[in-house]
Amino acid sequence: MTIEAYDNNNIFGKILRGEIPCHRVYEDDDTLAFMDVMPQSPGHVLVIPKAPSRNILDADPRTLSKLMPVVQRLAKAVKEAFEADGITVTQFNEPAAGQTVFHLHFHIVPRYEGAALKPHSGQMEDNELLATQAEKIIGELGN
Amino acid sequence: MTIEAYDNNNIFGKILRGEIPCHRVYEDDDTLAFMDVMPQSPGHVLVIPKAPSRNILDADPRTLSKLMPVVQRLAKAVKEAFEADGITVTQFNEPAAGQTVFHLHFHIVPRYEGAALKPHSGQMEDNELLATQAEKIIGELGN
Repeated sequence: MTIEAYDNNNIFGKILRGEIPCHRVYEDDDTLAFMDVMPQSPGHVLVIPKAPSRNILDADPRTLSKLMPVVQRLAKAVKEAFEADGITVTQFNEPAAGQTVFHLHFHIVPRYEGAALKPHSGQMEDNELLATQAEKIIGELGN
Repeated sequence: MTIEAYDNNNIFGKILRGEIPCHRVYEDDDTLAFMDVMPQSPGHVLVIPKAPSRNILDADPRTLSKLMPVVQRLAKAVKEAFEADGITVTQFNEPAAGQTVFHLHFHIVPRYEGAALKPHSGQMEDNELLATQAEKIIGELGN
């Protein structure tokens, strides 16, 4: 199986290098989590490894093993912070699967009874609102 | 955060205990993978830990760390076996997020350029076809 090589000019690579800002909610030696700027639901968070990989198809398995407990921690914190009824975790590989940024990432999306999921609108969410939402999640992680 | 306790009468619990059959594609001490009987796309596979948990919200983090390299292996094998252009990995937590079986599971769904994902039809796939598809994936895992 061949997939394209990792290209570090992707937007998450730039975020990891501090070249563009993000609304960070969690960081450790291996992992960064931040608000999705085009959320499908308020509180939509992305969790990425710092190690470079295009997606799950070329990731180091050890990267995945370190990443998933953080995905879990964020899923729980986001559910609490946004009083969600459920959480959808998604991870897209290659454009045919909906991947648009080619650095491995997991989506954590709060869900509510009777509410269908919005598609990505293509509209940037308000910066102030994202900052406030990030603070809510950070507060929950501290509990 | 409270979620309901794990109930081992769920259908995946029954599969793990051998009380009902499945089209198994992979098994190790901690993990089982098998064909989804109501596939959203041909080759739709489910990967579950043997350790009981309702979903990601109550799982042991070590369970997730062991599970994800297997999810990766299956994602790669399914992509090859079905010559897919991409793979969607999804994991649903609680009914509001679309969870219908309350044993932690990851969906691996082959995707194709220009083809939208089918919803779960509620229709059981043909048993013979699932058996043939399972063999394809098992063959790919052996490569």
